[in-house]
Amino acid sequence: MALTDRLFGRRLASHEEEAQRVGPIAGVSMLGLDALSSSAYGPEAALTLLLPLGALGVAYIVPITSVIIGLLLIVYISYRQTIAAYPTGGGSYTVARENLGISAGLLAAAALILDYVLNVAVGISAGVGALVSALRGLQPYTLPLYLAILVLIALVNLRGVRESGLVFLIPTYLFIGCMLLVLAIGVARALLNGGHPLPVDVPPRLPAGVTAVSVWLILRAFASGCTAMTGVEAVSNGVSAFRAPPVRNARRTLTVIIVTLVALLAGIAYLARAYGIGATEPGRTGYESVLSQLVAAVVGHSMFYYVTIGALLTVLALSANTSFAGFPRLCRIIALDDFLPHAFATRGRRLVFSLGIYMLTAYAALLLIIFGGITDRLIPLFAIGAFLAFTLSQAGMVAHWWRVGGPHARKSLLINGVGALATASTLTVVLVAKFAEGAWITLLLIPGLLVLFRRVRRHYRQVARETACETPLDLTNLTKPIVVVPIQGWDMIARKGLRFALKLSPEVYVVQICDEDAQERLRAHWADYVEQPARAAGLPAPQLVVIPSPYRHLFSLLLAYITQLKDSHPNRQIAVIIPQLIEHRWYHYLLHNQRASILKALLLLRGDQRVVVINVPWYLTA
Amino acid sequence: MALTDRLFGRRLASHEEEAQRVGPIAGVSMLGLDALSSSAYGPEAALTLLLPLGALGVAYIVPITSVIIGLLLIVYISYRQTIAAYPTGGGSYTVARENLGISAGLLAAAALILDYVLNVAVGISAGVGALVSALRGLQPYTLPLYLAILVLIALVNLRGVRESGLVFLIPTYLFIGCMLLVLAIGVARALLNGGHPLPVDVPPRLPAGVTAVSVWLILRAFASGCTAMTGVEAVSNGVSAFRAPPVRNARRTLTVIIVTLVALLAGIAYLARAYGIGATEPGRTGYESVLSQLVAAVVGHSMFYYVTIGALLTVLALSANTSFAGFPRLCRIIALDDFLPHAFATRGRRLVFSLGIYMLTAYAALLLIIFGGITDRLIPLFAIGAFLAFTLSQAGMVAHWWRVGGPHARKSLLINGVGALATASTLTVVLVAKFAEGAWITLLLIPGLLVLFRRVRRHYRQVARETACETPLDLTNLTKPIVVVPIQGWDMIARKGLRFALKLSPEVYVVQICDEDAQERLRAHWADYVEQPARAAGLPAPQLVVIPSPYRHLFSLLLAYITQLKDSHPNRQIAVIIPQLIEHRWYHYLLHNQRASILKALLLLRGDQRVVVINVPWYLTA
Repeated sequence: MALTDRLFGRRLASHEEEAQRVGPIAGVSMLGLDALSSSAYGPEAALTLLLPLGALGVAYIVPITSVIIGLLLIVYISYRQTIAAYPTGGGSYTVARENLGISAGLLAAAALILDYVLNVAVGISAGVGALVSALRGLQPYTLPLYLAILVLIALVNLRGVRESGLVFLIPTYLFIGCMLLVLAIGVARALLNGGHPLPVDVPPRLPAGVTAVSVWLILRAFASGCTAMTGVEAVSNGVSAFRAPPVRNARRTLTVIIVTLVALLAGIAYLARAYGIGATEPGRTGYESVLSQLVAAVVGHSMFYYVTIGALLTVLALSANTSFAGFPRLCRIIALDDFLPHAFATRGRRLVFSLGIYMLTAYAALLLIIFGGITDRLIPLFAIGAFLAFTLSQAGMVAHWWRVGGPHARKSLLINGVGALATASTLTVVLVAKFAEGAWITLLLIPGLLVLFRRVRRHYRQVARETACETPLDLTNLTKPIVVVPIQGWDMIARKGLRFALKLSPEVYVVQICDEDAQERLRAHWADYVEQPARAAGLPAPQLVVIPSPYRHLFSLLLAYITQLKDSHPNRQIAVIIPQLIEHRWYHYLLHNQRASILKALLLLRGDQRVVVINVPWYLTA
Repeated sequence: MALTDRLFGRRLASHEEEAQRVGPIAGVSMLGLDALSSSAYGPEAALTLLLPLGALGVAYIVPITSVIIGLLLIVYISYRQTIAAYPTGGGSYTVARENLGISAGLLAAAALILDYVLNVAVGISAGVGALVSALRGLQPYTLPLYLAILVLIALVNLRGVRESGLVFLIPTYLFIGCMLLVLAIGVARALLNGGHPLPVDVPPRLPAGVTAVSVWLILRAFASGCTAMTGVEAVSNGVSAFRAPPVRNARRTLTVIIVTLVALLAGIAYLARAYGIGATEPGRTGYESVLSQLVAAVVGHSMFYYVTIGALLTVLALSANTSFAGFPRLCRIIALDDFLPHAFATRGRRLVFSLGIYMLTAYAALLLIIFGGITDRLIPLFAIGAFLAFTLSQAGMVAHWWRVGGPHARKSLLINGVGALATASTLTVVLVAKFAEGAWITLLLIPGLLVLFRRVRRHYRQVARETACETPLDLTNLTKPIVVVPIQGWDMIARKGLRFALKLSPEVYVVQICDEDAQERLRAHWADYVEQPARAAGLPAPQLVVIPSPYRHLFSLLLAYITQLKDSHPNRQIAVIIPQLIEHRWYHYLLHNQRASILKALLLLRGDQRVVVINVPWYLTA
């Protein structure tokens, strides 16, 4: 107990939930790291696709980023409304389900689930990847590092919702502070120098262009850049984690996240063009990330550079935390609707939804191990989930406002309508641009999840239908059961079982299945050991049924006998008493045949409503 | 069923045992392959140690083999007597236990068990090793070949005792016939040429001697050559496998095996000296086994050569079969004395002792995988087990004759006394000569097995003491049990459990452990659903016990409640009824919490004599 207390903290009472909730400050580090860290890979992904255009390509980053920021603001407004309209959380899933029907809701749910899982893998592998490329000596430990960070984040989250917000507070705000400062200095210098500042450390020269600009190329760069928008939906899934008033706190958190993200994206795009910073070929020697070039250009390879880049790597690696806050809550809401196992809605010792955390850890570990954390391969899968969820959520809000009506609603409807169109078109672009690169996997996984959801619900519905009961206890015909006691021979174990049988019912059959020697021995003593005491106590004597087993069968003969009893007594319950020796140590079980356990399992599996299994244990004293 | 029938044959009835027994002809191939195939590696092992003496060394093989043959004959006479004295089988174990006490018996048992397991590994690896050195292309498949042969032999043995004798008949007698013919031709030629026959294919020249002859070298060569004697004890373990009269048939089988083995060893030794055939350095290029050189020298690389060598390889690989015949029978006899799990004495579908076959296969597979089948490393371990068993068996027979007394016994006592001394000295030589080469492992494993035997028996004794019962059923104070029914809410499952509870006893406590919402719901309906029908039926109403669980504990609260009930009713039995939903498919269990199963397990593990667990299953109809 002491160890689990130290690892996870003391067990929390259910009524302590309120104290576990967070405000906007911890909310940003709990739910915002995914969105904020996207600024590190979104612009880079776009610039990588612009590489074939050479120095010319860098100029396109500003318009592309502007469009992304526009989209981001639309999505922001929409989620602000979602938070207010659905304060119990659930985000896109709830909005789509309530307004567009269950299928749309489940589609959003499937997209979000994939998105959250992928985010963990992408975040950790991107963070560790950058770290390892800085400190080459760590290269052989890449996979252990992945898993260590994954387990660390999982443990912090198992300690409770608040902990994850508090533990990651320092790196989060260090990252935000440093980056905003760097961008502010850079922008100031650029403005003072008429848009052409001198870099402190000169970034690598951009290669000469090898292709002409085309709409398709720009679209693909845009699609890649859109990964900068992932993680925005997390706050809407986690409204229930905020302290009162939850809606206002959640909205404030979302605002801080979005404003910061917009500032980062705008600053990065502006300075990339001003300093002429492009992507370098990933995986080649001489590779340097866009943000590293940018920070070096503004402040040189100073102490400040290292602090900023260090905070960036940390935040990237910790961006997985957003999933750990969002995923278990999303799964809980889906489980409450019967579409996932109910265990997802059970609170653990620290009031978190432990099963969701375990599952997320397991799936992310699997992805990291299988893909070896090659981030590039996972990113396309990732953006699709996010944009599918955005689109469904926007479309849901359109339907919502349509239903609500009124002048205020018309304006909101318009905003969400534009948002739905914008995100739907972006989704199409991302799908087409990234299809061959792995987006097709998403298109396979989502229907799989949908089938799973439906099946789970169908099963729950059926069980509920079959077990639901509004009728009182029926106590007519309360006849005692027929009791069957299988025994191997006369010992204390059998004697105890038989005594219990006679407490339950006067109609007891003792069944012995054996070869010839053993049966003679029991039969010889039956009158003395059983019949006489029963008669003396005024009870009908239990009947001894000996079934010979020439082929050394046991269970099949016993099951056949029970079936025969059932058939000849069509309205009676059959109670099978299984006397069982309980051992002190597990390895002692190797020394005894496990007939009792096997018989119990077989009776439950092959039995029916009329058969009841009674286990009378016999404990060894030493 | 059809598949298992085809693999293992139809299930045999217990009374069909007689038809499964064998006569001497099948007995030789069932129990003799180990002994006969030793002729392939015993002389070779001795000649390998004589290598440093060069051409001179080969001359020593004749006296060394003579001593070994002398020992063999003593052991033969001793085992003939053992078979007659202990016709139920068990060999060295039974003889030592009966005459020298349990410790000596167990020592022999441990030695034999190791010996049998090692024989499987050595036989298969020697056979496959020779095959692979002939057909180099098979080299990469060495381990799969090992395991394939192992599984083949195990399958044949699972089909029954007779099968293994019949299936391996042809290779056995082909090997005996070919070898005896080659040796006869060779000896005839040697005699006709005054002891110096001309080889048909000239064997490799022996290297020049590098050391002078020493007693220590000769002793080590003798110790190595003694591996030729392993496998002789198998017949005495398998007497029960022979058809009536078993003693005569077993003795005949032993005689055939020993006479053949003596002929082979004598012929090989004589011809090795006559043709000047020595060992070649094993593992070096140019290596050729002694028997291959010898057969080539006598009949050249003719068709006959290939047939003979082919039969030899087959017999080597199949020599493992001896262990499969002996080991399960030995384990059975030990298990009947309570020193091994009783399951070793249970007959499978084909009346063989299946568990012994499984365990032998598993251990041998482990050895083959760990040692990579490097025969040389295993052989020293192997001879020690055999000679320890021989010595104990001889010493046991000395004690036996001493007790029997009379003039005939005196002669037998003398023979066995000489045998005991001879095998004990040989054991000492082998131990000293082979200690550093791995014989020390045997000295570690044997005490381990002895401890295991003792512990197993102690446990069985204790269970027997505690469960033995010679007293009749006690039917005083047959009060009905107190019944506890843990439920989660009111549904068909709970209703069925409660109905059953009222059949058993008027004193029923329904326990609900839950958070606040659920308890209100059940309490509100309690009067309607339960109390009123009970009163109408004239039964005392079951009592509803609601236990709040602020920390979401379940099992600990329930167990505490049951303990409290027990304490307040010190003389009553508590029956815990666990209503349980039974699913159709295993994966449906993922959708429900496993409270019923966990509770059952906990109650059995932590319960005591007064707690009985009753499982009332609820089956879904679809």
